[in-house]
Amino acid sequence: MLQQTAPASAPSCAPSSAPAARDWNTQARNREARLERASPLAHGKVVKSADAAALLEAILETGDRVCLEGNNQKQADFLAKVLAGLDPARVNGLHMVQSVLALPEHLDVFESGVASRLDFSFSGPQGARLARLVSGGQIAIGAIHTYLELFSRYFVDLTPRVSLVCAQAADRNGNLYTGPNTEDTPVIVEATAFKRGIVIAQVNELVDTLPRVDIPADWVDFVIASPKPHYIEPLFTRDPAQISDIQVLMAMMAIKGIYAPYEVDRLNHGIGFDTAAIELILPTYAESLGLKGKICRHWALNPHPALIPAIEAGFVQSVHSFGSELGMEAYIRARPDVFFTGPDGSMRSNRAMCQAAGHYACDLFIGSTLQIDLAGNSSTATLGRIAGFGGAPNMGADARGRRHASPTWLKAGREARAGRNTVPRGQKLVVQMVETYREHMQPAFVETLDAFALAESAGMDLPPVMIYGEDVTHILTEEGIANLLLCRTDEEREQAIRGVAGYTPVGLGRDRRAVENLRDRGIILRPEDLGIDKRSATRDLLAARSVKDLVRASGGLYDPPKRFRNW
Amino acid sequence: MLQQTAPASAPSCAPSSAPAARDWNTQARNREARLERASPLAHGKVVKSADAAALLEAILETGDRVCLEGNNQKQADFLAKVLAGLDPARVNGLHMVQSVLALPEHLDVFESGVASRLDFSFSGPQGARLARLVSGGQIAIGAIHTYLELFSRYFVDLTPRVSLVCAQAADRNGNLYTGPNTEDTPVIVEATAFKRGIVIAQVNELVDTLPRVDIPADWVDFVIASPKPHYIEPLFTRDPAQISDIQVLMAMMAIKGIYAPYEVDRLNHGIGFDTAAIELILPTYAESLGLKGKICRHWALNPHPALIPAIEAGFVQSVHSFGSELGMEAYIRARPDVFFTGPDGSMRSNRAMCQAAGHYACDLFIGSTLQIDLAGNSSTATLGRIAGFGGAPNMGADARGRRHASPTWLKAGREARAGRNTVPRGQKLVVQMVETYREHMQPAFVETLDAFALAESAGMDLPPVMIYGEDVTHILTEEGIANLLLCRTDEEREQAIRGVAGYTPVGLGRDRRAVENLRDRGIILRPEDLGIDKRSATRDLLAARSVKDLVRASGGLYDPPKRFRNW
Repeated sequence: MLQQTAPASAPSCAPSSAPAARDWNTQARNREARLERASPLAHGKVVKSADAAALLEAILETGDRVCLEGNNQKQADFLAKVLAGLDPARVNGLHMVQSVLALPEHLDVFESGVASRLDFSFSGPQGARLARLVSGGQIAIGAIHTYLELFSRYFVDLTPRVSLVCAQAADRNGNLYTGPNTEDTPVIVEATAFKRGIVIAQVNELVDTLPRVDIPADWVDFVIASPKPHYIEPLFTRDPAQISDIQVLMAMMAIKGIYAPYEVDRLNHGIGFDTAAIELILPTYAESLGLKGKICRHWALNPHPALIPAIEAGFVQSVHSFGSELGMEAYIRARPDVFFTGPDGSMRSNRAMCQAAGHYACDLFIGSTLQIDLAGNSSTATLGRIAGFGGAPNMGADARGRRHASPTWLKAGREARAGRNTVPRGQKLVVQMVETYREHMQPAFVETLDAFALAESAGMDLPPVMIYGEDVTHILTEEGIANLLLCRTDEEREQAIRGVAGYTPVGLGRDRRAVENLRDRGIILRPEDLGIDKRSATRDLLAARSVKDLVRASGGLYDPPKRFRNW
Repeated sequence: MLQQTAPASAPSCAPSSAPAARDWNTQARNREARLERASPLAHGKVVKSADAAALLEAILETGDRVCLEGNNQKQADFLAKVLAGLDPARVNGLHMVQSVLALPEHLDVFESGVASRLDFSFSGPQGARLARLVSGGQIAIGAIHTYLELFSRYFVDLTPRVSLVCAQAADRNGNLYTGPNTEDTPVIVEATAFKRGIVIAQVNELVDTLPRVDIPADWVDFVIASPKPHYIEPLFTRDPAQISDIQVLMAMMAIKGIYAPYEVDRLNHGIGFDTAAIELILPTYAESLGLKGKICRHWALNPHPALIPAIEAGFVQSVHSFGSELGMEAYIRARPDVFFTGPDGSMRSNRAMCQAAGHYACDLFIGSTLQIDLAGNSSTATLGRIAGFGGAPNMGADARGRRHASPTWLKAGREARAGRNTVPRGQKLVVQMVETYREHMQPAFVETLDAFALAESAGMDLPPVMIYGEDVTHILTEEGIANLLLCRTDEEREQAIRGVAGYTPVGLGRDRRAVENLRDRGIILRPEDLGIDKRSATRDLLAARSVKDLVRASGGLYDPPKRFRNW
């Protein structure tokens, strides 16, 4: 961007030799060789499911970097099974680069020896088995990433050589319809296809004409109709019946103590019951405070069923989603003004862009955790499990590259910098919302995160902190809100945290006078400081108190998965 | 993620009313109405260029949010001209949301009254005129964003209603071939098409069969063959003849003082001559230090011609790009192992994903600036110009959501936290590289950034700081390197900056003893501290000393634009 004055031109004596006779086309030729080996198995791009194993054996080479599409919701489960069943004498040493380890097969490939190295984001239910395989030396973990970070590396130093992805349908040319659960597919396929890698898609059906094209055929090498539809997990459904009065109280504090004063209008919610409670009292409590049209209009969020009453009440203007949610299909189709949908009426999700939106276009992230330490660091990591954090670190970090202002962001920035001699700057609200005791009477507040011991035992470079204390702006418990933005020293911060930690050992260890001082300064806010009568905090405030209520609120459009039905 | 114990189920008395008879389909019906008005002008999706104005008048409605594709390089110039020529009595009050204001027409639309509101990222050469129009009240600026941030808002609260985009070619179904300069197009089209907006593409040619599909036809409503090929700017070409000995010295310090000790292997370079000098001494100086294969293998970078010698020398393993660069087409086609290319052999760029890569998958950002203050804040903003920063803030910010480790990131994090009682964390290297005096003898170091006065005069919420001092890790001048990671107080930081500010007033105001102390502690590194003999810092080290040398280094494949040829 800067212009320079040209120096007196020196006589040119740079090396003038022609480029060395290096081969610059190894990837494309290797790709052709793989396609050649596979060609007897394919009719055009279509391969029979019975030939899937033969196809993978023909395509894969030892040491390949492979993305086996594991999403939050949909799973390339057929291809996972086929991959896990391959003979490790023929295919081995694969380096798996995939966002989620959700299925047993995602780890079977390591146990069988087909794969040996792993870069991922979230392992959820497979976390304990993953830890065992790592300590047994069967898996070398490269790193644990947040989603957008892993996708970013697909374009830099972790580009997949072969990707095994998942779509709803394909046509015979190889165009893919990923529909509501588009999720990771576009970013995986783009990185692989444009680096001369190979893309194989399992699809639920082969059709003549797709409802719409999500991935162009050019980017796809093979399609296989899987024997049965791909597995999909309703990960974001929370039954309102399980929300407690205490969670309603916390939700009220979130709305009156944070959403209202900061005018939170663009946001992401975590996956738990705590935030579901907030969603469910928007049409009741937030409405009664006159906040409709003032807060919570724009969301980066999966289509949580718990959001239905707020949508119906006219609270919600737009929702962009990472993925979809089982049972929400007809409802989304009937509410196109709210969701991103295609010409076929079904949703288009996109995890990469929604994570970018969560990072850069949202003013607040609020979510739960398992443990918070005295500096405000939080983590869901526990000993004996390597779970990863999915998208939380990306959305629960101050986006320091952000330059556009909003009232929320400016107010948070002002509070953080008040009385300090620094350049004015905005800040993202990052709220950790926990009850002081979680299930089995485990305190949520601890002197030291389990993450530290886990890092040591698993030989990690750094302890797996989900959200760093430096990035957390508020901690919300049933005891109140600790506004960490207003704390001026580490000691104040510690007392603010202890001050909302209730009867946990951390809470009992508070300095009473310091905590009262913080309360006087508005750094700690109790329910009564917010004018919230605890007796009013009951489940009666929930706009839906059961899954059946959600169905009713949707006008019968929401069709919950069986496990959530008790009628 | 957290399970809760279910409370005793309360009798359900939630509102059971059916949803109110609200219309949830306004966007899709409005879309249909627009398409209906336009239908007499279209043959399928094809509209004649002579009918472009009539098409825009038929499609646009007052107050529409419109993305007129303005990229760093390619421009939807024909559609820009047509838009600027519309009768403001018929179309007005448009809200423009586009990354770059590059063409006069991008501002003409405001002068004519067709548009009134603007959200953008970079205005480059239009910055002075933009400032005049803003102060004259003809433009209301929403905000100035970094690219990925603006794209993110396309999915949240700035979704375009109509997008006017630019492609190389279309087929008659509306599939688009964006080729090497794909740039912003995918993200613009995705956000618009899946929110029932309207996408109009100008293309250089209509063909029967595209070399490849970059954007599926489903996502595109109209294509117009423009009367002449779209404008494209070779923004990333730097003539090596203009690189000075001093810049060679600074480049040597960058390599020996930063790249080598931090093992910088994944990086982004800014656009200036300073970083071009680094690229050009990789095959000479860095090679002589034995660094080949150890640094600079993976790049998030446009195909800078200055990178050719390093590619030819085998330094570079992969390059993913925001956009392409004029003249590099044949070279890229002949080096597919390095670049991301499609089946047609030409590059696929993608600004959104490359910015994500720059944020999350690179360990170092290095670039130039106009001004640096005593706290290390830097900005290219100057009075009377509203220019924006493009991608620099996104790449020049510590990515606090990042969780994967690399030697570079761990070392920077250790240095920043040494002796501090904080949780270990990595950190991105962010280097500002400036000569102490820039052209016209303007000092690069100042007590106060012009950005502060600009913010006041233009009524901005915050001063337009490009990179905040908190995020800068090193400042590099011809005087040496200031390692801000190792500074422990604001005072140390200020003296470290003064210590490399040379004979500028800021430099002359240094505390000599403090600066010597910082040098003893390795916080300030002079060339001699790095074992660099200044006499060896000459243009002789450049692997190419002219554009002609670059052509030669490419084996004749690089075909520079005329303005860069003097032979």
